[in-house]
Amino acid sequence: MATRNLPKPPAASPWKPAGARAQQREAKRNAVLQTAARLFNERGYHATSLDDIAEQLHVSKPTLYYYVKSKDDILLECVRTALGMMQQGIDEVRRAGGSAIDQLMACMRIYSRIVTMDFGMCVIRIGEDPLPAPRRKELRRLKAGIDGEFRRLIADGIAEGSLAPCDPKMAAFVLAGALSWIGRWYRPDGGLDPDAIADQSIALLMAGVQQRDPSPRRIPKKPAVRKSK
Amino acid sequence: MATRNLPKPPAASPWKPAGARAQQREAKRNAVLQTAARLFNERGYHATSLDDIAEQLHVSKPTLYYYVKSKDDILLECVRTALGMMQQGIDEVRRAGGSAIDQLMACMRIYSRIVTMDFGMCVIRIGEDPLPAPRRKELRRLKAGIDGEFRRLIADGIAEGSLAPCDPKMAAFVLAGALSWIGRWYRPDGGLDPDAIADQSIALLMAGVQQRDPSPRRIPKKPAVRKSK
Repeated sequence: MATRNLPKPPAASPWKPAGARAQQREAKRNAVLQTAARLFNERGYHATSLDDIAEQLHVSKPTLYYYVKSKDDILLECVRTALGMMQQGIDEVRRAGGSAIDQLMACMRIYSRIVTMDFGMCVIRIGEDPLPAPRRKELRRLKAGIDGEFRRLIADGIAEGSLAPCDPKMAAFVLAGALSWIGRWYRPDGGLDPDAIADQSIALLMAGVQQRDPSPRRIPKKPAVRKSK
Repeated sequence: MATRNLPKPPAASPWKPAGARAQQREAKRNAVLQTAARLFNERGYHATSLDDIAEQLHVSKPTLYYYVKSKDDILLECVRTALGMMQQGIDEVRRAGGSAIDQLMACMRIYSRIVTMDFGMCVIRIGEDPLPAPRRKELRRLKAGIDGEFRRLIADGIAEGSLAPCDPKMAAFVLAGALSWIGRWYRPDGGLDPDAIADQSIALLMAGVQQRDPSPRRIPKKPAVRKSK
């Protein structure tokens, strides 16, 4: 993808300069990935063929091979891109600093926004499972990194006194789980605004669903189960 | 599967009575479903063949066909059974009565326990997507029923004053989403007890992760996002 700094060809040339060509290629490759992600999310990974993707883009399957190696390659790129966006967002929050609770909420917001986008939805709906072992491992490592960031922020929040004492591992699962689920039920045409979904989900997870009394009552450690058969 | 009340054959008969045969058939069918569910959850639906399932059970593939019609049929039964267990549990909670918040917590407990079991995990990891449209529709209807129960209990909880005012639809997504996610990360051999997972998740969702001050501070409606790129 690295484009050398070639001298510009004469203005009359019917070929575009190398830089522009590379840019155009990148834009086309991105269109392939985006279209594929949308189809994977709508129909499922196994139910989507390269022919389906080519058809949506009005190109032939051989044309697709100019931009991607295989269906696996496409999925890998979609998931990797989304996880990369999450990690980049978290890194920026980290660099900006501030209290752990504010950083945590900012990261939750980034996470919940990304899972409503095509690539992010792929992380939740398809994931790494269909890929061969080395690829699965790579993506799981990226996911574990993001999970680690949430755990770290939760531990920091407990330390600074803004979060209630809890097991950061469990809390990270609960927070990221609830937010991940958005990627399962969200419909771009469903009439719910992704920002509003993020706001409401984060508010619920931060404050809990229970009414806060002036004298907060303790949640029983073992909720009473009625004859759970 | 209905077995008539036939008179018992003479004691010397090498054939078992019809009732016992039906019972045994049911037990074997259940073993097929359970084994299949475990393989689906471990390897994925598409990566699991009927041959794999037969091999695990030390039987031939033709033997499997005596108990199930197809792989689709197996998945349908696994998901349907788990959703049926959830609905049945919720019905029992409902019949037992009590405050809406206690009922909600009891239902959350049932839900979170079922998603750590083979069939319940199938609901979360595989779901209805690989199935043909009429089956998908049937399972989505069952899911929508469970979602409706959560929404109803949340609305009742707000009405009785035990839950903080919120959109019951969003809250149901957040609660069921966080609990569903357990089915994605839970490993039977992972050293975490399913009951402890349920307890901690429910406590976190009820009370939120934020520290409760003596004078509860409001969660800002729009959390500050730092330069979210």
